[in-house]
Amino acid sequence: MKKVILDVDTGIDDAMAIAYAARSKDIDLVGITTCFGNTSLDEATRNTLQLLELLGREDIPVSPGAATPLFRPPLKQKATFVHGEDAMGNHSLPLPKMEPSGKHAAEYMVEMILKHPEEITLVCVGSMTNLALAVMREPSIVEKVERVVIMGGAATVSGNVTPAAEANIYTDPEAAEYVFRSGLPITMVGLDVTMQTLLPREQLAVWKAKQTPLGDFMAHIVGFYMDSYLRFYPGIGGCALHDPLAIGAVINPRFIKTVPMHIQVDCEGIHSVGRTIPDLRSIPANPPNVDVALEVDEEGFLEHFLSVVV
Amino acid sequence: MKKVILDVDTGIDDAMAIAYAARSKDIDLVGITTCFGNTSLDEATRNTLQLLELLGREDIPVSPGAATPLFRPPLKQKATFVHGEDAMGNHSLPLPKMEPSGKHAAEYMVEMILKHPEEITLVCVGSMTNLALAVMREPSIVEKVERVVIMGGAATVSGNVTPAAEANIYTDPEAAEYVFRSGLPITMVGLDVTMQTLLPREQLAVWKAKQTPLGDFMAHIVGFYMDSYLRFYPGIGGCALHDPLAIGAVINPRFIKTVPMHIQVDCEGIHSVGRTIPDLRSIPANPPNVDVALEVDEEGFLEHFLSVVV
Repeated sequence: MKKVILDVDTGIDDAMAIAYAARSKDIDLVGITTCFGNTSLDEATRNTLQLLELLGREDIPVSPGAATPLFRPPLKQKATFVHGEDAMGNHSLPLPKMEPSGKHAAEYMVEMILKHPEEITLVCVGSMTNLALAVMREPSIVEKVERVVIMGGAATVSGNVTPAAEANIYTDPEAAEYVFRSGLPITMVGLDVTMQTLLPREQLAVWKAKQTPLGDFMAHIVGFYMDSYLRFYPGIGGCALHDPLAIGAVINPRFIKTVPMHIQVDCEGIHSVGRTIPDLRSIPANPPNVDVALEVDEEGFLEHFLSVVV
Repeated sequence: MKKVILDVDTGIDDAMAIAYAARSKDIDLVGITTCFGNTSLDEATRNTLQLLELLGREDIPVSPGAATPLFRPPLKQKATFVHGEDAMGNHSLPLPKMEPSGKHAAEYMVEMILKHPEEITLVCVGSMTNLALAVMREPSIVEKVERVVIMGGAATVSGNVTPAAEANIYTDPEAAEYVFRSGLPITMVGLDVTMQTLLPREQLAVWKAKQTPLGDFMAHIVGFYMDSYLRFYPGIGGCALHDPLAIGAVINPRFIKTVPMHIQVDCEGIHSVGRTIPDLRSIPANPPNVDVALEVDEEGFLEHFLSVVV
């Protein structure tokens, strides 16, 4: 069982990733940290607590972190058109009874990594802000974390929020660049592979037919997400599994194939800010700093995800 | 026979492209225009004239154009490490007897396109500066040119001068962006396809064995180019055919397969300046402005090139 800290900006696909990690027998989900991104820090934290209660996993501590990017002004918009007014598909879960832990996300990451050297896998599926803050706080975690798996970036394909940039990098490019330069052992699960995954719409009926609160909830929020997906990807028969694939890559690294590359995050320019620039030339100017996933066993991963998540 | 104006910054692969175009029975090479790029405007012009004399094509007028980028300071470096001190492989051709035409490249382009509406194919294998100047001079050429084929850019692969940028775009990004926005019917033959071509080193011996001035010259300059190639692409058994492929695409459009895309040139930022950003999202923000070559019949093209060039 792998000890995992999951950093989220919950968000519908974050919710799927949380359910996947919390219910997997291969993962010891020691804690969740939250960040701004798909929505505000407070809403991301609330959504996370509500979901953990639904999952019966009140044992997992939730530590809120950054409410804004490292150096940029707060985001003006929530991604309500993708994730709903509450950032979780306009659901109807009760307000949480759980309270967040008293620790800042970065403080929690540092404490746990120092306590369990070479045992913690950090999975970051929002902006890299909390992780950057953790490395700033205690640089030695770079050597002591087992691995960092991020959902973010687009090395060999177009972005999503802009032609150049993927959303989790775009929301805090300086944090991402800091993380990529830090020496952390990083696996990048970006649009290169997540856009190759597809959760088919038919799954909603399967979940509903279970007639469980979790099945109903997942069918509701993922149905909302698939509706929004249709506006960006006409004709698509479902949705990609962005954040869940990062969890899948921890559970079974063979779900993806990676290539070591040097990745530079562009932090300037209206057209390219937030782009993850790979140096794919025969002789790159710098050594590799990221293992970039370029291939995915989408069938194997989807089958496993569905066997665990609800 | 297609009427072609070829815009060059000669340069070894420009020299191959000139020889290919000047000797092809499918191309009526009505004129050559020159530009700064691989070297200075003056050297590019001199090299072009020397080569035309070697080819016995003193009938082709050569019109020098831009010596500097549109809005940026003059380039500080010549690419001597790729093309040699004289930008043409340290050859030993005599100084040219031919004189350049009295016309500026942009003036010549405009005159010829207005004189032969819908008949002229412009092939630009250096920076886009002369072409941008021509459109500024006479915007109606946008409707009257048959097609523009450029060697430049990298839509789906890394750049060469930087991880993001290809050299011909990098040397004058504003000119390239102006050209891409102009409404010209553009085919982009970029690194996406040119890096799939390979002229094998064994060809040098074949050319030498012809015991002709042209064969000796090509073997000499291309040998120099292949040596420099080895430093950037260790183990490569020859060199790519960047500029010649743009000519190949005019002679036989089926040598390449193109996809219409919207391309934006990034004109800012140290990491991304000169990048050709494709909007490959399901719903691009803008309509296509360039037909981007993504596939090449490298065997068919190479066979044809070799049957014509020497």
